[in-house]
Amino acid sequence: MTTASRGPIDPAAHLARLRERAPLIHNITNLVAMNPMANVLLALGASPAMVHAREEAAEFATLADALTVNIGTLSPQWVAAMEEAAEAARLAGKPWVLDPVAVGATAYRRAAGQRLLERRPTVIRGNASEILALEAGGAGGRGVDSSDPVEAAEQAAVALARRLDAVVAVTGEVDRVTDGRRLAHIPGGHALMPRVTTLGCALTGVVAAFLVGAEDPFAATVAALACYGEAGRQAGAVAAGPGSFAVAFLDALHALDSQQLSDLPPLEVTDAP
Amino acid sequence: MTTASRGPIDPAAHLARLRERAPLIHNITNLVAMNPMANVLLALGASPAMVHAREEAAEFATLADALTVNIGTLSPQWVAAMEEAAEAARLAGKPWVLDPVAVGATAYRRAAGQRLLERRPTVIRGNASEILALEAGGAGGRGVDSSDPVEAAEQAAVALARRLDAVVAVTGEVDRVTDGRRLAHIPGGHALMPRVTTLGCALTGVVAAFLVGAEDPFAATVAALACYGEAGRQAGAVAAGPGSFAVAFLDALHALDSQQLSDLPPLEVTDAP
Amino acid sequence: MTTASRGPIDPAAHLARLRERAPLIHNITNLVAMNPMANVLLALGASPAMVHAREEAAEFATLADALTVNIGTLSPQWVAAMEEAAEAARLAGKPWVLDPVAVGATAYRRAAGQRLLERRPTVIRGNASEILALEAGGAGGRGVDSSDPVEAAEQAAVALARRLDAVVAVTGEVDRVTDGRRLAHIPGGHALMPRVTTLGCALTGVVAAFLVGAEDPFAATVAALACYGEAGRQAGAVAAGPGSFAVAFLDALHALDSQQLSDLPPLEVTDAP
Repeated sequence: MTTASRGPIDPAAHLARLRERAPLIHNITNLVAMNPMANVLLALGASPAMVHAREEAAEFATLADALTVNIGTLSPQWVAAMEEAAEAARLAGKPWVLDPVAVGATAYRRAAGQRLLERRPTVIRGNASEILALEAGGAGGRGVDSSDPVEAAEQAAVALARRLDAVVAVTGEVDRVTDGRRLAHIPGGHALMPRVTTLGCALTGVVAAFLVGAEDPFAATVAALACYGEAGRQAGAVAAGPGSFAVAFLDALHALDSQQLSDLPPLEVTDAP
Repeated sequence: MTTASRGPIDPAAHLARLRERAPLIHNITNLVAMNPMANVLLALGASPAMVHAREEAAEFATLADALTVNIGTLSPQWVAAMEEAAEAARLAGKPWVLDPVAVGATAYRRAAGQRLLERRPTVIRGNASEILALEAGGAGGRGVDSSDPVEAAEQAAVALARRLDAVVAVTGEVDRVTDGRRLAHIPGGHALMPRVTTLGCALTGVVAAFLVGAEDPFAATVAALACYGEAGRQAGAVAAGPGSFAVAFLDALHALDSQQLSDLPPLEVTDAP
Repeated sequence: MTTASRGPIDPAAHLARLRERAPLIHNITNLVAMNPMANVLLALGASPAMVHAREEAAEFATLADALTVNIGTLSPQWVAAMEEAAEAARLAGKPWVLDPVAVGATAYRRAAGQRLLERRPTVIRGNASEILALEAGGAGGRGVDSSDPVEAAEQAAVALARRLDAVVAVTGEVDRVTDGRRLAHIPGGHALMPRVTTLGCALTGVVAAFLVGAEDPFAATVAALACYGEAGRQAGAVAAGPGSFAVAFLDALHALDSQQLSDLPPLEVTDAP
């Protein structure tokens, strides 16, 4: 991991890198998220691929520029493919992002979550209940929607980041990102975002796309969340409800430009508590 | 089952209960419907979760407030998970809704449909061809779209409801709901609804969400269909085609309020023939 | 195969046949494409069904009017079901269309692609990288997005069509269709189309729907692509980005009429090189 810079993070520069590289993002994600995640990545300028068969997942992970693993809808063959793909990505030096959907809800999920942590994700992105459950190694949360506020998971996020030498992002009303040394708060987004399914899952893909070619995974994750939040804010300003929000959000991601991003207030990075 | 009230059914009161409880709805549904179903439930105010692995489906069914099972896209592992989850829901006293997609089309579907009926669904929601095939225990219908008008399935619906002590909803141009003693006709909706995929499947989730905390499953089902039909009517009034209909429909579900619902003509409930 | 007519192809006549027949299209497609493909087929006037369980896929293929097989998201059970369904369709004289998504990317995909070719698809529809990989019988392309321009695959398309006595469609900026004797160039579409996921996969379903009842699979494929491109052109004229494009595209497919189609420049058909 690189030096923990406290310097300003420029989301526009990260987005420009993503669009220039158009990275191929390999996703083993849940069945609900596949389509929105692909559309979000395409709108932003990346190239998504959904490949989960055990017969090819590890091979594909070495072809792609980054990997995401989301445990939202599991089956034994998929869990095996997730572990093998994550291992292949790690060995090939490709970044990979874990999305521990509802990890505290059932014994099967808890076990899958812990096994994936052993494959050392570059970034873990979840809601507050998921990060709390992951750090506790146990139960917590009932469904896929968070039952805890973001701030309640801040300490768990820092502890998890230190233990795994990873970046941890807790998303919700005001997102938190930490690498165990630094902590950023990212505002933005809109109240309708939790009323559209799998926008959090799709964000996991966006984080992966920002990681490709980034020197500092913490800064790249912060930049990804800042861009996502700004697109959400813009979409919320024109949406009449969750249906039109989803449409406007894709349009906003596609149209997001450096001018809009440079008008944002500077991102606040502090020492992790 | 409760006394068969002939009193007026107030959809607004049922919707208010749903929004206050934000019930967690566990869905084992087909791969086409997963995303729209989640979005419909979120727009309305419920919390959807899609969990179908045999390793966790029964456990999750006891955590959730209600279960839906939809046989649209099957596989042996899923059929086993459906049966186990339905059994767990039944034993835990949670309502569950069966959606017998294209049940008459193949031998595999017919067998799966009959085994699920043995788990005693609280409500069965299907199109006319599906309800006819289910009651006949055999073939009927070719694809997933109904080849029979709703009225042709009215007698089959009443017979099925009596035989299983369940509520049966036949949806189409004018929906029918019966518990074997009462029969309701619910108008509403729009001609574009069958041109948007899996709106019927998503309605099955809505019925489950209305069942949570309801004293009378028949009334809750009627209320669910009335709300859905009204949102469909509103969306149809502004849509230019099936694409904009789907967007406007989610917005309408989210914005649906008691004023709009109290302006509807009273729902007609008669004795079942 | 019919005589290779050089006469004009009238997309409006083909679309009218589709709408009158409302053919049942059986799709074994990838998990990302299922929902958009169903919506595209419904918007156009066909009846889609997604059936991939090995226990019923072959049986269903004989019930349906046409079959599509898309290898975007594979698993061993699905590959077996694809082969059995394709064989059943072929024996029953039903047209079937192969969509070789990312066929060159992994060994598993290359093997699946070659086995499916042995089942003699009526039409193969892919992007340039996929058609090149399929004809070479080997590697090529990295993800699901083409890394080659359409014209680079023209010779491979003609060779593949001749070898398999099939129609081959290469889609991209200006589509090519060939049956090995004739070659058509179909303009249309819009730059936003590749920014919306699985519009190519959905087009495979549209080709299948146009094949039902067609005397000349080449002409039906050309007509399908011309209609799709025109709807894309119309959607692009009003869309603000990929989100609103997807919505407008479904509306345009639904509203497409013979007047709009007869205003198009005549489709150019030449001898294949």
